[in-house]
Parts: sequence; C-alpha cells; structure tokens
Amino acid sequence: MIGKLAIVGVGLIGGSLARAAKRAGIVSEVVGIGRDDASLQRGVELGVIDRFTTDIGSGVADADMVVIAVPLATISKLLPQLKASMPADAVLTDVGSAKASVVEDVRTVFGQIPANFVPGHPIAGTEKSGVEASFAELFDNRRVILTPLPESAPEAIAKVRLLWEQAGAEVIEMGVEHHDEVLAATSHLPHVLAYALVDALARGEQGEEIFRYAAGGFRDFSRIASSHPVMWRDICLANRGAILKMLKHFTDDLNEIADSIEKGDGDHLLELFSRAKAARDRYCG
Amino acid sequence: MIGKLAIVGVGLIGGSLARAAKRAGIVSEVVGIGRDDASLQRGVELGVIDRFTTDIGSGVADADMVVIAVPLATISKLLPQLKASMPADAVLTDVGSAKASVVEDVRTVFGQIPANFVPGHPIAGTEKSGVEASFAELFDNRRVILTPLPESAPEAIAKVRLLWEQAGAEVIEMGVEHHDEVLAATSHLPHVLAYALVDALARGEQGEEIFRYAAGGFRDFSRIASSHPVMWRDICLANRGAILKMLKHFTDDLNEIADSIEKGDGDHLLELFSRAKAARDRYCG
Repeated sequence: MIGKLAIVGVGLIGGSLARAAKRAGIVSEVVGIGRDDASLQRGVELGVIDRFTTDIGSGVADADMVVIAVPLATISKLLPQLKASMPADAVLTDVGSAKASVVEDVRTVFGQIPANFVPGHPIAGTEKSGVEASFAELFDNRRVILTPLPESAPEAIAKVRLLWEQAGAEVIEMGVEHHDEVLAATSHLPHVLAYALVDALARGEQGEEIFRYAAGGFRDFSRIASSHPVMWRDICLANRGAILKMLKHFTDDLNEIADSIEKGDGDHLLELFSRAKAARDRYCG
Repeated sequence: MIGKLAIVGVGLIGGSLARAAKRAGIVSEVVGIGRDDASLQRGVELGVIDRFTTDIGSGVADADMVVIAVPLATISKLLPQLKASMPADAVLTDVGSAKASVVEDVRTVFGQIPANFVPGHPIAGTEKSGVEASFAELFDNRRVILTPLPESAPEAIAKVRLLWEQAGAEVIEMGVEHHDEVLAATSHLPHVLAYALVDALARGEQGEEIFRYAAGGFRDFSRIASSHPVMWRDICLANRGAILKMLKHFTDDLNEIADSIEKGDGDHLLELFSRAKAARDRYCG
C-alpha cells in the first residue's frame, strides 16, 4: 500500500499508471503535478488523479512515492525541485524510454545516486498522448523493465516492483546499458524509420496525395509515426549512442538488400525475407 | 454477369476474389487453376472455387474471364499456355503488385498487347497467404488500380471494373509507370524496411531474444515482414527501378536524421517528426 503517490507529468503513461494504481486499490491519494492547469483539471474530472498542483515542491512534499513521467529532456529541469522537497524516505522512480541519461541526470543533480531511486520503463504505450488517452489497462500483461543501480535499496526496488505488478505488468530487471541497447533496437529505431518513411513520402514528388494509395500494411507500419514528436526527439538525443549503432546495423542490412535488388539477386532476397518472416512469426506470431 | 471465371493461382488474393464474386452472385462458375492438388482441393472444400485443374490449357479453354493471381515471376511462364488456349473474346487481367513487368511479359509472349488484356492491382492483402487465408470481404471499400493500355478495349476495361466493383472495391485508373512509383513508395519500400529491420534485429548480438522486449508499436511496424517471401522477392525484382529510387530518397532522409542525432540537433528532429506526424494523422488518421 502506497499512501500518497505523486505523478509528475499526467499524460498517457503517467495518467494510465494513476488509473491502474487506483484500479488496484493500492493508493490512498494520487496527486498530479504538471504545468498545464487545464489538462490537470481534466485529469481530476476524469478521475485519473485526486488533486493537482503546478508547484512541484508542494506536490511532492509529503509523497510516499514520486513517479517522473515527463519527456526525457524535461527531467533534469525538475530534479532540483524534487531534491529540495521530497521526503528523505520517499521512493523515486521514472518511466523514461532511455535509462542512462536519466541516471546521469539524477547523479548530477543529487551528487550521487540516492538509495531510494529506482529507474524504470514500462514497455507499453500507444501512438496517442495526453491524459485523455490514458486508460487503466495499458500495462496489463505488458513488461516493465527496472534498471536498479548498485546504490538502489532493496526495499525501494520492491516497492516500485509492487506498484507495477499491481498495475497489471510483468516486471523484469536488467542493466541500464543493456536496456538502452535493447530498446534502441526494438523501439527507438522502428520509430525513427517510421518517421523517416512518412516524411520521405510526404516530401516526395507526389506529395501527400500518395497516402491515398496506402494499404493496410502501410497504416500498421507507419502508425508509430503518429507518436509524440517531443518525446521522440528527447529519446533520440538521450539514447543517441545506442540508436546510431542500431541505425548503422540496419542501414548495412538495407544496403545489402538494395544491392541484391540492383543485381537481380533473387536468391539472396528470398533467403533474407524468409529468415525475417521466420523470426517474426516465431516471436510475434 | 460473368459465365465462367478462371482463376490462375488460388491463394489469398485469387481465393478472396473468387469468394467475393460468388458473394455478389456475378459468376456462374469459378474454376481454380494451380499446381498443388491438395491446396486446390481445399479450395473446393471451402467453397472458394467450384472445381479445379492443374492443366492451364483445359482450365481456361471456355473461360469468359481469366484472372492471373500468381507471384510476378511466375506470370511469364504461364502466358504461352494462356495464349494457346484462351478463347479470343475472353478478358484477361491480373493482380500483380507491379505493372510494368506484367505488361512487358504479355507483350513479349503475345507479340503485342491483346485488346482484351487489362492489367489490375487490388490494394488489399494481409500478411497471411494461401487459400485458407482468403475471405470474401478482403476488397470491401479497398481500392483497385487498373492500368489499362492504349490497346485495351473499352468493353474489356468495363468488365474488369465491374468485377472489382461487385467484389466491393473502388476502382481507379492510372498509368503503368505512375502505379509502379506510387506502389514502390507506399507498399514495396515499407515491406523492404520491415524485412530489413526484423532481419537486422534477429542477426544482432542479442539474437532473436530481443523480440521479447518488443512492444505493440514494433508488432504493428513489423507485421508486414510476415508476408510471403517469394511474392516479395518477385515484386522487388519486377519493380526494381522505382523501388531503388524510393530507397534512395528514404536513405537520404534517414541519413539526415542520423546526422541530427549525432550532432544533437533537436530542433531539426522535432521539425521532421512533427511534419511526419501531421502528414500521417491527416491521411491515415
């Protein structure tokens, strides 16, 4: 049981976590903290949060747990106020899609990694954003990755784990660097590709009229290009090393395909397409 | 009303067209033509076709309309038998995803473009294949592009148009080259990217274990990598010029993004991601 849960950033993820915690009956109060009065007020009306404040200090002053759910580049700006106002025994966690940059931000502002800090990342989301898009079932049967640090206290890890498990998720733990590489491959790179493709098409000779001829496959493929641009800019910059490395692997593969198409090497194309189909069917089937 | 409809290749597209034509009550008989007895027999059992033969000559001998629905590279192999056995007044069409190569094949085998030949392409499909995956609703409210040639007889065009309209589709016409460019952009390139990404991930250091951490966005994005590898090999080779051109545009865009990530140019990333989101929301929203 968590007494007061403070959620900094009540958007799709923060709002859905608030809803899921309420659904599970594990919080007595959820306070939403943000910058936009109207959006926070809407969160109260929707029953997502119990009350709100735009003042971080007073919002976290008597919190038992604080969840940071803002775009990555905003985190470093909030940390000084959190450090100044959070109770010493409150647990601090976040939901950022890249973990090394958050850990670095915390280390810089706090001077060290606090024992009550446990970085986290729910592998869940939709291409929508904002509190209106939040729903309690978002994390049901989804994975949440925690990347605890050597400094993280076992009790703090246990509390964050419990929150996510009660929100319906399966919790796994891995190292910060491993997390950032895995996510660069399975999430960050696909988003970059989807944005690049949609933009390349829209800027092409045909203009946007070309989307009229897009079939269902394209819709599915490009759905993630509707994701929150600020969030994805921040992820690209926060996890740039791992993303650039994956981009390199990918473009090598793509150049190999372009080469085969140019040379008319059907055997190689068939081999590669068959291997990809088998992998996808096996794991996402 | 079509009397006898001969469908060469009773897979997802051919089978779904047979089902849709039967649903509309516009055919008196559908004959399936293929190489695999067991699959054709299954088509009869499922009510997709009325009867079948593995002999193209006898299958098309008294047909009123012949639809070629086999992978692109197989078409040129079938055309000599079609030419030898089809009634002179039967209409010939196809469902190939690239049109210039089919037109070239027909011109080569027939010595000219027959007046009763109307190239076509339904913008519909799923990542599944085979007659078991076929369903009558596949073309409902989807677009079918016809690319009639100067030699195509108006009555032949009208008959093919009617077939697709009765199958539930909206029929549009455009030139062969324009079709191939539009499809390279909206369908062929996305498939190549999905195959390349899934293959790059599966071959990476993490191996296929990495797919465990893939979220919903990745599933959507990579779904088309489960498509029929032979069909897509053929498309890549048949439409290689347009695909290579689009690949070039795309990699230019991608390199620009990689450059911005490397330089930490968040403004440019935000501009590009916002533009892509706006385009996608406007057209696929």
